Amino acid sequence: MTELPIIRLRPKSKPQAIRHGFPWVFADELVTDRRTRAIAAGSFAVLEDAERSPLGIVTFNADSRIIARMMDPDPQAQIDRAWIAARLSRALAMRERLFDKPFYRLIHAEADGLPGVIIDRFGDAAVIQPNAAWAERMVGDIADALREVAGVSTVILNGQGRARGLEGLPERMETLSGGIDAPVQVQMNGAIYLADLLGGQKTGLFYDQRPNHAFAQRLSQGARVLDVFSHVGGFGLAALAAGATQATCVDGSAPALELARGGAQAMGAADRLVTRQGDAFAQLEALAEEGAQFDVVICDPPAFAPSKPALEAGLRAYERVAKLAAPLVAPGGYLGLCSCSHAADLTAFRNASARGIGRGGRRMQLIHTGQAGPDHPVLPQLAESGYLKSLFFRLDG
Amino acid sequence: MTELPIIRLRPKSKPQAIRHGFPWVFADELVTDRRTRAIAAGSFAVLEDAERSPLGIVTFNADSRIIARMMDPDPQAQIDRAWIAARLSRALAMRERLFDKPFYRLIHAEADGLPGVIIDRFGDAAVIQPNAAWAERMVGDIADALREVAGVSTVILNGQGRARGLEGLPERMETLSGGIDAPVQVQMNGAIYLADLLGGQKTGLFYDQRPNHAFAQRLSQGARVLDVFSHVGGFGLAALAAGATQATCVDGSAPALELARGGAQAMGAADRLVTRQGDAFAQLEALAEEGAQFDVVICDPPAFAPSKPALEAGLRAYERVAKLAAPLVAPGGYLGLCSCSHAADLTAFRNASARGIGRGGRRMQLIHTGQAGPDHPVLPQLAESGYLKSLFFRLDG
Repeated sequence: MTELPIIRLRPKSKPQAIRHGFPWVFADELVTDRRTRAIAAGSFAVLEDAERSPLGIVTFNADSRIIARMMDPDPQAQIDRAWIAARLSRALAMRERLFDKPFYRLIHAEADGLPGVIIDRFGDAAVIQPNAAWAERMVGDIADALREVAGVSTVILNGQGRARGLEGLPERMETLSGGIDAPVQVQMNGAIYLADLLGGQKTGLFYDQRPNHAFAQRLSQGARVLDVFSHVGGFGLAALAAGATQATCVDGSAPALELARGGAQAMGAADRLVTRQGDAFAQLEALAEEGAQFDVVICDPPAFAPSKPALEAGLRAYERVAKLAAPLVAPGGYLGLCSCSHAADLTAFRNASARGIGRGGRRMQLIHTGQAGPDHPVLPQLAESGYLKSLFFRLDG
Repeated sequence: MTELPIIRLRPKSKPQAIRHGFPWVFADELVTDRRTRAIAAGSFAVLEDAERSPLGIVTFNADSRIIARMMDPDPQAQIDRAWIAARLSRALAMRERLFDKPFYRLIHAEADGLPGVIIDRFGDAAVIQPNAAWAERMVGDIADALREVAGVSTVILNGQGRARGLEGLPERMETLSGGIDAPVQVQMNGAIYLADLLGGQKTGLFYDQRPNHAFAQRLSQGARVLDVFSHVGGFGLAALAAGATQATCVDGSAPALELARGGAQAMGAADRLVTRQGDAFAQLEALAEEGAQFDVVICDPPAFAPSKPALEAGLRAYERVAKLAAPLVAPGGYLGLCSCSHAADLTAFRNASARGIGRGGRRMQLIHTGQAGPDHPVLPQLAESGYLKSLFFRLDG
C-alpha cells in the first residue's frame, strides 16, 4: 500500500464542519507549501486538522477553487474499484426502491459519495460525467464498477459542460463500452421520451423534473397544455400521457422538437402534439397575438441566472417569462414556472414570478412548490443551493 | 344597498402591496378615528389609499392585529351568499381536478378568497373553522353556500384553536346541519383513516401531510415502519397501504391510537399494526434500549416552535427528536422529520434536523423536501410562512 501524502488545514479554519459532513476544503483553508503544490491533480491525500488529527481521505486538485473533496472519513480506506462499487451499490439500492423502471440519475456527486461524478442511467446504457480530476483519472474503474453493479452494457463518457472547466479538465466525448446508434427510449411517468445520449444537452434527458412533470399531469387530463422551452417534450409528453387533448411544445432547437415528435409517436399520441420552433419569447408574443388560450402553461427555461453576477438580469428574464405566459392561461387555469438557476434562490424566484404574473394582469394562488426528484439527493450542508425550483400557480377565473 | 363605511390608509403606508394582492392591513397602517373605532367587528368597509382611491372591500376588526382583510378588490362587490358560493365553486373546481375522492381541504383561508376561513371536506360532511369575525357573523350563509355548491349534508362549526383568540372570538362547537354519530372513514393514498369530526384535533384529520404520506409510501413496501407522534396513524396507515410488513404507531393520545387501530381494521391490516401509547421522547428512548430497528422512521411532532419566542427551545426539541430517532433507523434506511412550526423556517429546521442526526451518530443524504399539499394553497405574498416542512433523509449503511 502506497503512503498517501498528508495535507493540513490552517489553524484558523474550522475542522468541525468537515467532521459533520461538509465535503469541501477551499484553497485558502489549507496550508500550501511546495510539497503540497507538487501533488498531482486528482490524487488522494490524507487531510489533517491543524492539530494533526486525521479527518479522512480527500482528493486534491490545486487547479480548482475546491482544492480538496472528502472521499472517505476513514483515513485507512482504499479508494479502488471495490470502494467505488460499494458506493454504486448503495446508490442503486435507493433508486431500485424508488423507481420501478431503470431510468434515473444513479449518482448525484457528493451526496452519493462520489465527489464530482454524475451518472444517469437509461435502461441498459449509462452516461458518466466525470466532473472532478480524480474521476477523470479513474473513469475506467468507475465504468467497470458500473457494469458490474448495475449490469449496464453501454457506458458513455460525457466530458462536456461548465463544471469540468472549473476543475481544469478538457472537453471530450467517448463511448467506453457497448454502443448506441439511435436515441434511447426512456419511460417516465407513463410517457416515452427519446434521449440522444451522444449529441443531446447534458446527459440527454433531464431526470430532475420527474416529480414536477408528475404534478403537471394531475392538472392535464382533458386540458390544452403549452410547454415552453420544452427540450425533448418534458412537460408536453407527460401531459399527453395524462390525457391532455393537445400539447404544444415550443423550443428553439429543431433537433429537440424532432425527438419530442418521436416520443409522441412512440406513445401513439403524435396527433395530439403541436410543435413550434423558434425563440420562446417571440413565440409567447405570437401566441398572445393569435389569441391562444391554454388550460395549463409550463415554462421551463434554461438557467437565466447561473451565477451571482447574472442574478439581476436573470430575475428580470424570469419575470418577463411569467408576464408573457400569464395572459395565455385560460380563466381558472394553471401556470407552472421553473428555474434551474443556482444563483436565484426560491424566494427571489417566487417574487420575480409573482411580479411577472401580476404585470401580466392576473391574480394568483401558489398551489405547489417542487424540487428535483429523490434521485438527486443533496447533502444537508449544501442543501441551500438546491438549484431546481418549480412553482405551480392557479390564475384567476 | 347599504353604503359601506370608508376606512383609509395612512399617507406613509404603501398601497402598492395591496394592489398587488397582499391581503392584510395592520392597525398602524390605518387612519383610526372615533368613526373607525365604532365599526363593528366583522363588518365590511371600503378601503381607500391616502389619496382616496378605493382599493376594495375589506372586513374590519379593531380587536385583531390584522385590522382589515381584503375581501374583494372590486369596491362595488356585494359580499353575500352568492359571492361566497362563487368562491366555493372556484375552490371546488381545483380540488375536483386534483383529487379523485371528496376528501380534502376545500377552503384554505386567504388564498382561496375567504379570509380566515378553513373548510375541510370529509365526503358528505364538512367542518368549518370561521377564524375571522366576518365569517363568524356570516357562518349561516357560508354553510348554506357549502351545502349548495359541494352537496354536503352534515356541516359542523369547529370554533376552537389559537386563531380565534387572536380575532377575539369565543370557543364553540356546533353541528349546523345533519349530524354524525361515529368517526368518519376517510380515504387517502389508498389508506383508510378514522376522523373524529366532533372531538378530534383541529378538524379531525391532517390533510396537509397527504403528499408526504405518499412519499413515505414509496419507501415502505416490505419495510418495518415507525410512526412517532402518529395521531390517528397518518404515516403508519399509509405505510401499511403501501405494503409495509409492520407499522408501529407511537402517540401520547389513547383515543388517537384507538382511531388508528380502527383505520387499520377497516383496511384489513390490523395484524400489521402495533401501537405504543406514551410520551414520544420516552418511547424513542425505550425503543433504543430494546434494540429496535426500523427501515423507515417518521417523526411528525406537534408545533414545537409555534411563535418566535418559542423558536430556540423549539429547534432544540426538533434536534432532540432527530438525535433519538436516528439510531433506530436500520443501515441504509430512511428517516422522515416533519415540522408544522410557523416560526421555524426551512433552513433552521433542516439545520436542527441534520445536527440531531449527526449527534445521533449517523451520516445522511437529504432525498426529499415536502410541503403541504395543493389543497393548502398560499398567496405568494404570504408564501414565506409556509408552515409545513417534511424532510426525508437516507442514513448511512
